[in-house]
Amino acid sequence: MIIVFKPSATEQDIDHVTDRLRELGLKSQISRGEERTILGVIGDERILENQPLTVFAGVESVTTILAPWKLVSREFQKWDSIIDVNGVAIGGKTLTIMAGPCAVEKLEITVGIAHEVKAAGGTVLRGGAYKPRTSPYSFQGLGREGLDYLVEAKRQTGLPVVSEILDPRDTDVFLEKADIIQIGARNMHNFELLKEVGAYDKPVLLKRGLSATIKELLLSAEYIISRGNRNVILCERGIRTFETQYRNTLDLSAVPTLKELSHLPVIVDPSHATGKWSLVAPMAKAAIAAGADGLLIEVHSNPECALCDGEESLKPHRFKELMSDLKLIAKAVGREL
Amino acid sequence: MIIVFKPSATEQDIDHVTDRLRELGLKSQISRGEERTILGVIGDERILENQPLTVFAGVESVTTILAPWKLVSREFQKWDSIIDVNGVAIGGKTLTIMAGPCAVEKLEITVGIAHEVKAAGGTVLRGGAYKPRTSPYSFQGLGREGLDYLVEAKRQTGLPVVSEILDPRDTDVFLEKADIIQIGARNMHNFELLKEVGAYDKPVLLKRGLSATIKELLLSAEYIISRGNRNVILCERGIRTFETQYRNTLDLSAVPTLKELSHLPVIVDPSHATGKWSLVAPMAKAAIAAGADGLLIEVHSNPECALCDGEESLKPHRFKELMSDLKLIAKAVGREL
Amino acid sequence: MIIVFKPSATEQDIDHVTDRLRELGLKSQISRGEERTILGVIGDERILENQPLTVFAGVESVTTILAPWKLVSREFQKWDSIIDVNGVAIGGKTLTIMAGPCAVEKLEITVGIAHEVKAAGGTVLRGGAYKPRTSPYSFQGLGREGLDYLVEAKRQTGLPVVSEILDPRDTDVFLEKADIIQIGARNMHNFELLKEVGAYDKPVLLKRGLSATIKELLLSAEYIISRGNRNVILCERGIRTFETQYRNTLDLSAVPTLKELSHLPVIVDPSHATGKWSLVAPMAKAAIAAGADGLLIEVHSNPECALCDGEESLKPHRFKELMSDLKLIAKAVGREL
Amino acid sequence: MIIVFKPSATEQDIDHVTDRLRELGLKSQISRGEERTILGVIGDERILENQPLTVFAGVESVTTILAPWKLVSREFQKWDSIIDVNGVAIGGKTLTIMAGPCAVEKLEITVGIAHEVKAAGGTVLRGGAYKPRTSPYSFQGLGREGLDYLVEAKRQTGLPVVSEILDPRDTDVFLEKADIIQIGARNMHNFELLKEVGAYDKPVLLKRGLSATIKELLLSAEYIISRGNRNVILCERGIRTFETQYRNTLDLSAVPTLKELSHLPVIVDPSHATGKWSLVAPMAKAAIAAGADGLLIEVHSNPECALCDGEESLKPHRFKELMSDLKLIAKAVGREL
Repeated sequence: MIIVFKPSATEQDIDHVTDRLRELGLKSQISRGEERTILGVIGDERILENQPLTVFAGVESVTTILAPWKLVSREFQKWDSIIDVNGVAIGGKTLTIMAGPCAVEKLEITVGIAHEVKAAGGTVLRGGAYKPRTSPYSFQGLGREGLDYLVEAKRQTGLPVVSEILDPRDTDVFLEKADIIQIGARNMHNFELLKEVGAYDKPVLLKRGLSATIKELLLSAEYIISRGNRNVILCERGIRTFETQYRNTLDLSAVPTLKELSHLPVIVDPSHATGKWSLVAPMAKAAIAAGADGLLIEVHSNPECALCDGEESLKPHRFKELMSDLKLIAKAVGREL
Repeated sequence: MIIVFKPSATEQDIDHVTDRLRELGLKSQISRGEERTILGVIGDERILENQPLTVFAGVESVTTILAPWKLVSREFQKWDSIIDVNGVAIGGKTLTIMAGPCAVEKLEITVGIAHEVKAAGGTVLRGGAYKPRTSPYSFQGLGREGLDYLVEAKRQTGLPVVSEILDPRDTDVFLEKADIIQIGARNMHNFELLKEVGAYDKPVLLKRGLSATIKELLLSAEYIISRGNRNVILCERGIRTFETQYRNTLDLSAVPTLKELSHLPVIVDPSHATGKWSLVAPMAKAAIAAGADGLLIEVHSNPECALCDGEESLKPHRFKELMSDLKLIAKAVGREL
Repeated sequence: MIIVFKPSATEQDIDHVTDRLRELGLKSQISRGEERTILGVIGDERILENQPLTVFAGVESVTTILAPWKLVSREFQKWDSIIDVNGVAIGGKTLTIMAGPCAVEKLEITVGIAHEVKAAGGTVLRGGAYKPRTSPYSFQGLGREGLDYLVEAKRQTGLPVVSEILDPRDTDVFLEKADIIQIGARNMHNFELLKEVGAYDKPVLLKRGLSATIKELLLSAEYIISRGNRNVILCERGIRTFETQYRNTLDLSAVPTLKELSHLPVIVDPSHATGKWSLVAPMAKAAIAAGADGLLIEVHSNPECALCDGEESLKPHRFKELMSDLKLIAKAVGREL
Repeated sequence: MIIVFKPSATEQDIDHVTDRLRELGLKSQISRGEERTILGVIGDERILENQPLTVFAGVESVTTILAPWKLVSREFQKWDSIIDVNGVAIGGKTLTIMAGPCAVEKLEITVGIAHEVKAAGGTVLRGGAYKPRTSPYSFQGLGREGLDYLVEAKRQTGLPVVSEILDPRDTDVFLEKADIIQIGARNMHNFELLKEVGAYDKPVLLKRGLSATIKELLLSAEYIISRGNRNVILCERGIRTFETQYRNTLDLSAVPTLKELSHLPVIVDPSHATGKWSLVAPMAKAAIAAGADGLLIEVHSNPECALCDGEESLKPHRFKELMSDLKLIAKAVGREL
C-alpha cells in the first residue's frame, strides 16, 4: 500500500500514520519527493482492510498494491482449475456448452429441448426453476417442480443440470437435484448466498453482476472458495452501459483478463448479454475466439410461447447450426468441442 | 403497447400477431403508415408481461405504453404516503434525518453516537449489524449482538432504529429489534428478500441498486407493496458510472422524478454515494433543495478507528454544523427540520 | 411516431396536437385504449425533427418509429458497401488489416514498421501525425511532417495510408497525403469536421465516440454521406463504462448490429479499446469471429520508446503471429486474409 | 509516480527501469516489500507523460501521484478566480444566472426573451447561433445572423452574451460578437478548438463532455489556460449513464469536487442535463445548494415552437418564479443573486 501525503502534511501527521501502522504490525518506508511525501507499507496490506487511512490528517490518497483476493488468483495457483461435473470437465481443452430454456415451463417441453441440446452436442442442460424477475407480475418460475423436470430430462439424456438458486433456504433441494448451482447476476453481491454455497463442494456457476467490476466478481468467487468450495466457474454475461441497442453490453475483454488474473474457468452467456437471438451466434463465436472455456446459451423449441426471454432464445435448428460453426472456431484457437 | 412491423412483414405476419393478442383477450387497432404498419394494443398490456412479441415473424419493435408498476404509482395514489415509525412521520413537511455509524462496533461507541445524533436533531438512528462487504476478509458486522446495541441506544435516546437485513432467515430478529428494515443497494434485486419483508407491515427503507434504473427501483418497491406492506421508503444512494473521483455518482434528478412517478417518500444517502466526508455536507444540502424527504448520514465519533467506511463519516461536531445549515435550506424550500 | 396522452389529457389537448401535425402536412390516426389515448403519425416523421411535441399540454410521451438516418441504412441499400482504397477493397470477403504506430515519430522507425506490417500481411498503414491528447503536456504529433513520413513509407511499401484529422483547416493536406482520413473517437461529434470531410470523396474512417451510441455513430456517418461522400468505414473502438481493468470496454455486439442496420463496412480497433497489448490478440480474433470486416492494430518496433500508447502496441513478431492466427479464424467464418 | 514490479521481476528488470528514469533526469527510491518491489520516482513526473513504463519487462503497474494539470489547480492558486465579463463578475459571492433560448431563431423572439431574462434578474444572455445537432436533418442554427440577433438583444438589455463556437474558423466573429465563448460538451475534447480559444483573453465557458471525467475536464481547461487565456468558467451539464429517465445524469458532486481541485468558477446547466423542464427548477436549486457559482438555464417564450430543445425550456413566468426561489437558497448558503 502506498500512502501519499498532502504538501501541507506536517511531520506529526506522518508520524501519526506510521505509529498506527506499527501498532498493526506493519513496517513502512518513507520517500520524500519534491512535491509529495510518500509512505510505502511493507507487510500484508490486507491487515488494512478495516482501517480507513484517508481520514488521517495530512493524507492525500491511498493506493493498494496487492490484489484484495488470494485463493482465486493465478499467483496462488499457476495452473488452470478444471471442474469436474459428473464426468464433464469444465476448463480444459474441450469447451463446455450449457444450453436449454431460460425458464422451465412444462415437462415435455423441457425434456424435448434437452434431447435437442444433447443431439446438437451440448454438454450441460440449463433451465431456470426459480426466476429472478424485475417485475412481481412476471412469471416467477415453477420452483421445486421445475427442478424435478430438469432431473427427469437429465435421467433421459445424461446431461448434468445447472439451475439458479435465489434463496439460501433452498440449498438442500439444489444440492439434491442440481449438478451445478448457478448464482445469477442479480445475486453476485448477495453475500449470504455466496457463503451458503461455499459451504459445500457442489460446483457453482457464478455470473458477473450487471455492474460488477472484474475485481468484484473475483472477490465474490473468493467468498465461495474461502468457505471451502473450490469448484467455481465464472461467467461473463454483459454489463450495464449507456447503449440501449441491446439489453446489456457483452464485455469480452473480461475473458482474457479473468484468465490472466485467475485460474478459474470462464464461460460466456451471449443470450442474456444481448437479449436478441440474432446476436447470439456472432457473440458465441467471438467468445470462443477470445478464449472462453464454454458458453451458456438459451435454446427453446417455441420462443413465441416461452414464458421468459423468448427474444433471446435460439430455436434448436439454429443452435445445431451454431454448434457446427463453433467447431471451426474452436479448432482455430486450439480447442475442441 | 405499440407493435411496429418491418417493411417486409406480410399480412399473414400481422394476422398471426393479432390472433395471439385476441387469444390473450386483447384488442388491437391497426395503423398503416407510409413506411411502417403499426398495431396499437387496447386493454391491460400487463397481460403481455410473459409473452415475447419481438420473436414473432415480421415484428420490428415493441414499445410499452403503461408503466409496469401499479401500487407504487402516483396515478394509483395521488397524495404523498406518510410512513409512521414510532411517532416519527416520514414523508411529510418535516424532514427525517437518519444518522449513525456505518457499522455497529462497540456498545459505548454506538450509544455515544446515538446521543450526539439526538442532540444535533437527528430523528432516526442508523447502524449496520450485518454488513455486506465486497471482500470476504473485511469486517462482516456483529450480527445479532449489533442489533442489541442499537436497541440499547434506542432505549436511552428514544430514537427509532434502522438497520440492514441481508438474509431472509433473519427476518424474525429484525421484526423484533429494528423499527425500519433496510434493504441495501446490493440486495435491491434480491427478490426473495423483498417478498419476505413484504409479508409484514414493518417499514422498509429500500435503497436503489448501484446500477438500478428508476424503473427497477419502483418495481422492487412494487414487489414489497404487492405482498401487502405499504410502508416503503425509497432511498437514492448514488449509481455506478465511469467517474472515479467519488465512490458513486449521486443522482439527485432521481428525487423529483421519483416524487413525480410515485407517492412514496424519498430520502438520500450522501455518505455512501460520495464515499468522502468532505462531499457529504454539500450533497446533503443539494438533496434537500432538490426536494428529498430526508437524509441518511454516517456519523462516527472517531472515523480513524471505524471498522467500515470511516472515509465518509462525519464527526459529531460537523454533523451538528450541517444540521444547522440544513435548517436554512429546509426553510428555503418550504420544509422544516 | 407514436404520441401517448396522459389520462388527464382533454379533447382540446388532443385536437391541439392533431392541428399542429396537420399544419406540418402529417396525418394522424387516433386509438383510444382503456388507460391511454394514442396518436399514430402517418407520413415522414423526420418532419418532426425540429418540433418538440412533449411540451404540448396533455402529452405523456413520444416514441419515434423510424430510424432517424436514411442513407446509411440497410433499408436504403440492401447490399454491402465496398470501399475502394487504391485497389484495397474494404468491406468484401477479404479482411482489411490496418496496422502501424500510434504516433508517427521518426522517418526510419515509421518506414521500418511499414515494412514489417507489409511483410506480415497488413494491407493499410496507420499512423498518427496530429494527435488528440488529453493533456496539453503530452506529445501532440509531428503534424504535416508526420504525414510526409507516411507518404514515404507508402512509396516504399505500396501500403495506402490512414491518418487522423483534427482540424477542418487541415483538409487540403489530408486530401493530398492520406488515402483514408480518420475521424477519431473524440471528434465523432465534431459536426463541422464531419461536414468538411463529407464534401469530398476521399474515404473516411469514422471511429465511434467513447460514449456514443450505435444510433449516434450512424447519424455521424449520415452527416458525411448526406454531404455527398459515400466512402465511409465505421470503426468500433471501445466505449466508456465503469470497468477500470482496461482503458475502454470493447463492444463487439456493435459489429453484427451495425452490419444489420447499415450497409457500411465495420472494422474494430482492439488496441485503443483495451489499452493493453496482451488483450489485443484475443480481442482481434473475437472481432473477426463476430463478423468485422477488418482491424486497426497498433504495431511498434520498440514500444518502450513510443511517444504515445506504447502500452497497447504489438511488437512486429507478435503482430506476425497474430496474423497467422487470424487466418484460421477468418477461414472459420468464411472470410479470408 | 509509483512503479510496482511483478513478483517475477528480476534485478535486471528493475535496473532497466531505474536506468531509463536516470536518463530522463529523475531519481528513484526502491522499497522491497514482502510480496512486491516498489519504485518511487522523485522529481517532476510530468516528464514521464510520453514514456510508457508498463511495457517494461517486470512492471506490474504504474500509479501517478501528482495531478496531471498545473495551472488550473487549487494548489497553484489558492484563491478563487473571478472572471470579469463586461462588469459581470463570475465566481464571487454573487451568483451568475445565464439564461435564454437554446437556439436563436428570430430577432423579435430573441430580444423578447432577453428582456424577460433581464426582468427576472438574469445576468447573462445565452443563445445558440451555431448548433451541434446529432442529426444532419435537424435545425443547424442561424450562424452569423444568429450572433447578430444576440448583439441586438445585448444592445437593448445590456446583458452580455454567451454563445457556442463549433469551428476554429469562426473565432474572429465570436471575438467580435460574443462576450463569453462557449465550448460545448461535444467539443470538450476538440483540442484544436481549445488551443484556438486559448490564444485570446475572451472568457470561455467550458462544458464537461457527456462522458468526460473531472480530470479530463480540468485537462481541457489546462489546454486553454496553458495557451495564455486564464478566463475559463467550468460547466457541469450532466453525464451519460445507463439511466434513461432523463437525458443525462446531472453530477452535482462535481461541483464541490471541482471547487476543491481548482480555483476556476463552476456553473451548472440543469436544462441540458435533464432535458425536461419539470426537473430544471429542483436541479437548479440543488446546484446552488451544492455550491455552484451560477446556472445556465434555457428560457423560451413559446417552447411549442422552439426549433431546438423545447422540452427543457422554462417559460418566462416559470423562470421568474425560479429566480425568486433561488434567492432564498442562495441566502441559505451565504451567496446572493
